Amino acid sequence: RQEGGREMAAWARAVRGLLLDVSGVLYDSGGDGGVPIAGSVEAVRRIKASGLKLRFCTNETQATREKFVKKLQGMGFDISVAEVTAPAPAACRILKERSLRPHLLVHNDLVPEFAEIDKANPNCVVIGDAAENFTYANLNEAFRVLIGMEKPVLISLGRGRYYKETDGLKLDVGAYMKALEYACDVQAEVVGKPAKAFFESALAEMGVPPQEAIMIGDDIVNDVGGAQRCGMRALQVRTGKYRPCDENHPHVKPDAYVNNLAEAVDIILQQL
Amino acid sequence: RQEGGREMAAWARAVRGLLLDVSGVLYDSGGDGGVPIAGSVEAVRRIKASGLKLRFCTNETQATREKFVKKLQGMGFDISVAEVTAPAPAACRILKERSLRPHLLVHNDLVPEFAEIDKANPNCVVIGDAAENFTYANLNEAFRVLIGMEKPVLISLGRGRYYKETDGLKLDVGAYMKALEYACDVQAEVVGKPAKAFFESALAEMGVPPQEAIMIGDDIVNDVGGAQRCGMRALQVRTGKYRPCDENHPHVKPDAYVNNLAEAVDIILQQL
Repeated sequence: RQEGGREMAAWARAVRGLLLDVSGVLYDSGGDGGVPIAGSVEAVRRIKASGLKLRFCTNETQATREKFVKKLQGMGFDISVAEVTAPAPAACRILKERSLRPHLLVHNDLVPEFAEIDKANPNCVVIGDAAENFTYANLNEAFRVLIGMEKPVLISLGRGRYYKETDGLKLDVGAYMKALEYACDVQAEVVGKPAKAFFESALAEMGVPPQEAIMIGDDIVNDVGGAQRCGMRALQVRTGKYRPCDENHPHVKPDAYVNNLAEAVDIILQQL
Repeated sequence: RQEGGREMAAWARAVRGLLLDVSGVLYDSGGDGGVPIAGSVEAVRRIKASGLKLRFCTNETQATREKFVKKLQGMGFDISVAEVTAPAPAACRILKERSLRPHLLVHNDLVPEFAEIDKANPNCVVIGDAAENFTYANLNEAFRVLIGMEKPVLISLGRGRYYKETDGLKLDVGAYMKALEYACDVQAEVVGKPAKAFFESALAEMGVPPQEAIMIGDDIVNDVGGAQRCGMRALQVRTGKYRPCDENHPHVKPDAYVNNLAEAVDIILQQL
């Protein structure tokens, strides 16, 4: 839309770095695979050629970054593990800093991210999108670990409500986080978008201050709202989980809308 | 404790009816069975002999009232189905009044309570303590039914956080209710304690006004707080899920504490 482009012209010249959400911006997920969104493979290549700093900023917790990156490379994307900011490594930093030993309620494929973390005699619970691991028994077990602590510590890899897969909508980690929060009367510490510390670590990794960075995402709250609260500009793409009603969101207004990543990159590169 | 007795003297003379919580007051549950709390079988008999009206007011949703009552009779209690106020029949009244057709996420043993309810083409979700039925697949299914509605209607049979069984603590219906509330951005309608309408229907069934009724329970929030908000007096027993820290609860203060149901009945019958 022209409107998006005009609005952006004023401030996009200062941009030195881009943060890209992945699912719903680069590709549409479904079951075990995924399909690139038209123009996105080329858009990533153009960003890299432009000299802009680039960081992939995802809440993905169903796979290690290695596996996740391999899937994206298989779709044709120019992406490496070192360019990805994801909740599990951020959680590992917190666990080490505070000498926390987690009980993990996460997807089997995420467990290797915690390989170097001491998990004996747990003094906190880390919950991710555990998918099939969200069994009655596993939820009770995580609950018992928490309620057995004097001050329960619950770390949640994101706070998403739900997401779509080819076989339908699925409850996301945020729903199970709320269940444990209520049962134990605690507030989870959220790692991942929209946590401020998560965006800040992505910016630090790029070496770009927030006012010179743009976040591009499909999630009005977690991508756009979260990035704006860190002082970044944020664009919402009209792909992935975008819904027209997002444009009437009561609290969050993107700095501009774009139809997709390719259009965002067109406009941004024109301003340079 | 004497203190409880003295506090009660002033107002217990007006009492005409008693509401008794069941689990933790009459018996301690565990696995498939349960053990009567010392003196409770005799206490129920004495209440009936005294001419006081009596109603059993439970949030039990893991079995039909028939099965539940049979279990209590097996422990020696003088109790019949007609004396029990429970969430499932209360929910059935609401479903009929509002022409709601439920998708059920409840314990298998509770399903017969909904035998006469039309469940085709559901326009609401009813959630109870489904226990082993709280699977990832069943939770996603209930979520999809809700999120597919223009205005999701979620009816929850209680809002308990957790309870204890012989093999350990278990998440109660309230935790799963919170998960669905968050995912769908709705507020559940709670049937069962501490809902005002639930206590009121128990009082109506006894034909006793709230100021002439006493609730006796082990749960500071659901039994004591709920009954007091209806204008009843409420005693907390020091059995079942009672914990010493309940006596410092920030919002709820029972009208008196008693060590157990037998002591409560001693004191109340002395005032008559």
